[in-house]
Amino acid sequence: MAAEFTQIRTVEFSETDMAGIVHFSNFLRWMESAEHAFLRSLGHSVHARDEDGVAGWPRVKVECEYFKPVRFEDVIEVLLRVEEVRNRSVRYGFRVRVAGASDDAARGMVIAVYARVDAASGRLDAVAIPEELRRKLVG
Amino acid sequence: MAAEFTQIRTVEFSETDMAGIVHFSNFLRWMESAEHAFLRSLGHSVHARDEDGVAGWPRVKVECEYFKPVRFEDVIEVLLRVEEVRNRSVRYGFRVRVAGASDDAARGMVIAVYARVDAASGRLDAVAIPEELRRKLVG
Amino acid sequence: MAAEFTQIRTVEFSETDMAGIVHFSNFLRWMESAEHAFLRSLGHSVHARDEDGVAGWPRVKVECEYFKPVRFEDVIEVLLRVEEVRNRSVRYGFRVRVAGASDDAARGMVIAVYARVDAASGRLDAVAIPEELRRKLVG
Amino acid sequence: MAAEFTQIRTVEFSETDMAGIVHFSNFLRWMESAEHAFLRSLGHSVHARDEDGVAGWPRVKVECEYFKPVRFEDVIEVLLRVEEVRNRSVRYGFRVRVAGASDDAARGMVIAVYARVDAASGRLDAVAIPEELRRKLVG
Repeated sequence: MAAEFTQIRTVEFSETDMAGIVHFSNFLRWMESAEHAFLRSLGHSVHARDEDGVAGWPRVKVECEYFKPVRFEDVIEVLLRVEEVRNRSVRYGFRVRVAGASDDAARGMVIAVYARVDAASGRLDAVAIPEELRRKLVG
Repeated sequence: MAAEFTQIRTVEFSETDMAGIVHFSNFLRWMESAEHAFLRSLGHSVHARDEDGVAGWPRVKVECEYFKPVRFEDVIEVLLRVEEVRNRSVRYGFRVRVAGASDDAARGMVIAVYARVDAASGRLDAVAIPEELRRKLVG
Repeated sequence: MAAEFTQIRTVEFSETDMAGIVHFSNFLRWMESAEHAFLRSLGHSVHARDEDGVAGWPRVKVECEYFKPVRFEDVIEVLLRVEEVRNRSVRYGFRVRVAGASDDAARGMVIAVYARVDAASGRLDAVAIPEELRRKLVG
Repeated sequence: MAAEFTQIRTVEFSETDMAGIVHFSNFLRWMESAEHAFLRSLGHSVHARDEDGVAGWPRVKVECEYFKPVRFEDVIEVLLRVEEVRNRSVRYGFRVRVAGASDDAARGMVIAVYARVDAASGRLDAVAIPEELRRKLVG
């Protein structure tokens, strides 16, 4: 059973472009925002500092398909679904939908790796997802 | 033979995030910017108004894979290549690279459709790419 | 008595920069977002289309002073206060504060004019604020 | 005699909004970008790391007045002028103008302080501008 999460937001004026609709790049920002809210809902931050340095979730791949325009002041739902948890990465699927609509406005995918910045060397390396967090991600 | 185009830009401070590197969503904006500069180089605007209304190129699909971080003040090259020209859409491939580097920092793909907003109805519909423009896109 | 309004939001990762704090330009976006939510709370949209064309509120002046950094995942309050309603413009004052903090992180000011795009000519002109809306703005 | 600097840029599609013109917040980003390019022209980075930690230029106050809309694909000039150099801060004046136009589209002001993040404590403190840099800023 996959973990799922929904974030609700209202489209802002600054997210539109001169075509009168939301600029496509904002869907990617929204997907990231839902992912971070999902991690917070698990008691985890996407950017966590501990005695060993900083751990984060850089993206290694993103995709988005656009089906319908989204407009200023639309209330939208960003639905996240954990599609695969691997040793060091997670693949999320996303659907963006105007609240109450039966069709998706967009669907996307993100693969994020769990990585640590080593406090001494400053290097960023993918590492195994801690077991407790992995269990929560699997849902 | 495919049309190709390169846009050079310098990474701005506002494009970085607290991980100290460029936020992933900016690569998508850069790809779009290179696409628009490419269209300008063909004597065409991505958002052209004529007596029949407005023609544009909404995205229907985007993808990006990230290989290396890009940092503030890096000079980067965004290389565009027309990969496929169909009746009403174009698929572009992109490579983003720090100037002088031998490896790509990111690679992406965009499918954009040629669409017109009908002046009377206000509807946005995909239409056939005009023949003259198509010839330029094929390169 | 002045109309007041508060918008609550959570700082997003994409709003931070490599200094590890929120990029200064986002405070201006937040102020605009609070202004739009305030107008919605009055039953009015910042971008309203009627039979005479489109009415909007372009900014003619903005200011912001920064006192304390705001960080990723901070919950913030953007407090709007209508400071002056003139014939064709409104001046709003803003305070941005981390929820629960006693000090402001930033304070700002926006002057927005009420303007209409004439449907025939396409020109944008400042016009008198409709009386019903003016009464609501005065609060 | 005041140091001056001009940055030329082309307005991007993602910088427009549904009003069909550049979103006001981008003028602030442009002013910051011109400031950083100006500092680079002096052989200095806005975010410099040395053995004592990181030095930067956080904004303490920004202002912008808007006179004329700027549109997609406009080539614009951002003219920076050092207006005052104090012990720990600089005040820049900015004018934004469509290339070739006789009138300013916008005028703005930024006060930035010279600040260091202490490597040990992590605190950010305003400090005196190094003498060599001050001389360059005065122009």
